[in-house]
Amino acid sequence: MSDKTTPRAEARQRRRRRSDGERSRGAILAQATRLATVEGLQGLSIGRLADAVEMSKSGLYSHFGSKKELQLAAIETAEAIFADRVTDPAAGAASAQERLRRLVDGYLGYIAADTFPGGCFFASALAEVDMQPGPVRDRLVAFLADWVDGLARAVRDAQAEGSIGGDEDPDQLAFEIEASLFLANAQYVVMRTSQPLERARRAIDRRLDAISVR
Amino acid sequence: MSDKTTPRAEARQRRRRRSDGERSRGAILAQATRLATVEGLQGLSIGRLADAVEMSKSGLYSHFGSKKELQLAAIETAEAIFADRVTDPAAGAASAQERLRRLVDGYLGYIAADTFPGGCFFASALAEVDMQPGPVRDRLVAFLADWVDGLARAVRDAQAEGSIGGDEDPDQLAFEIEASLFLANAQYVVMRTSQPLERARRAIDRRLDAISVR
Repeated sequence: MSDKTTPRAEARQRRRRRSDGERSRGAILAQATRLATVEGLQGLSIGRLADAVEMSKSGLYSHFGSKKELQLAAIETAEAIFADRVTDPAAGAASAQERLRRLVDGYLGYIAADTFPGGCFFASALAEVDMQPGPVRDRLVAFLADWVDGLARAVRDAQAEGSIGGDEDPDQLAFEIEASLFLANAQYVVMRTSQPLERARRAIDRRLDAISVR
Repeated sequence: MSDKTTPRAEARQRRRRRSDGERSRGAILAQATRLATVEGLQGLSIGRLADAVEMSKSGLYSHFGSKKELQLAAIETAEAIFADRVTDPAAGAASAQERLRRLVDGYLGYIAADTFPGGCFFASALAEVDMQPGPVRDRLVAFLADWVDGLARAVRDAQAEGSIGGDEDPDQLAFEIEASLFLANAQYVVMRTSQPLERARRAIDRRLDAISVR
C-alpha cells in the first residue's frame, strides 16, 4: 500500500497544501504592505502585485477576490506587524508610564528600522484615502483613533498610578505625543536621517519629564 | 474705418485674448488644486481635469503640455493661495513673536476655512508622492522645508528681539509647532470638527507662553 493512499498521508498532504497556501498568502501580503507604502494603496492592484510577487493574476485572484479585499487584507497584515513591533512589546511594561514611553520608543524604532519602505504604513495609507469614503478608509481611521486612544489610556493609567500629575488632559497629551511621532515619520520619509526622530524624542521626553511625579 | 482694424483695437483684442487665457488658466488651476486634495496629484490627469472644468482635453493641452507640467502649475497655484492666506498676512506683524503667532493662526485658519476640500494641499500632495523621485516631489519637499524654516526664522528673530528666551533651539521649537499643525490638519480631514485645531492651538500657545519673555 503506497503511503500516498493512506488516510493519514492524505491528511498530511492536506495540511501541507493548507500550510503552503497560508505561507504563500502571508508572503504575498507582506509584499503588498511594502508596495502600498511606495506606490500607494490605490496602486495595489492585483496586476501590479502579481508582477511584484512573480505570480499569475489568476493565482492572486484565488487568494483575494478583489482589489478591495486585497487592500483590507494588506491593512490586516500591517496591523499585525505594528502590534508585533510597537504595541505588544509595550504591553508587558511594569507601569503605565513605562508603557507610554515604550509605545513612543516602539513607534520611533519601527520607523528607524524601515519596517516599510515608505515609512509608517498607516500614515501613508490614510493620507491617500482620507477623502475616499468606504471600508478601507474606515478601517484606517479606526486604527489610528485606537492608537491615539491607547496613548491617552496609558496617560490616564499613569495618572491613576500617580506617576503623571492629575491636572494633565490625557487626550491633549496624547495629541501632542502623536503630533511629534506623526511629523517625525513624514520628515524621515523624505530626509532619511535620524534627525526628525531625535527631535520627536526630545519633544516627548521633555514634555513627559516635566509632568512626571516620580 | 472700422474700430476692428485700427492698431489700437488690435492691441486691445490681443490684451483681451491674453486676459481671457490667463483668467481661464487661473480658474483651471484653482480647480486643479482642489481636485488634487481629493483624488490625489496623480489623479490630476489632463482627462480627469477636463471633465472637472468642462473643457476639451485638447483645450487643456494648449494650457499645459503634459501631466507633469499641470502638476507643477497646480503646486505653484497652491503656493500662491498659501502665501495669500498664511504667510503674507503674517509678514506685516510688528514683532517676530507676533509673526510666529500669526503664522500659526494663519495655518489653522487656512485649514478651518476648507481652503482645499482635502485639507492642506502640501501635506496631502507630499504624502502621495514622497516615494516618487522627480521635480514634483522635489518642489513639495522644498516648499515644506521653507515653511518650517520660516517658523524657525521667526523664533530666531524673536530671540534676537528678546521676546523668546535664548536657550530654546529654534529648529527644535519649529519642529514642535509644525508637528501640532501637521497632525491637526490630518485629523481635521477625517473628523471635520474643530477639536484637533483647538488641540494644536492649546499645545502651541502653552509652549510659546512658557518661553515668552514678555
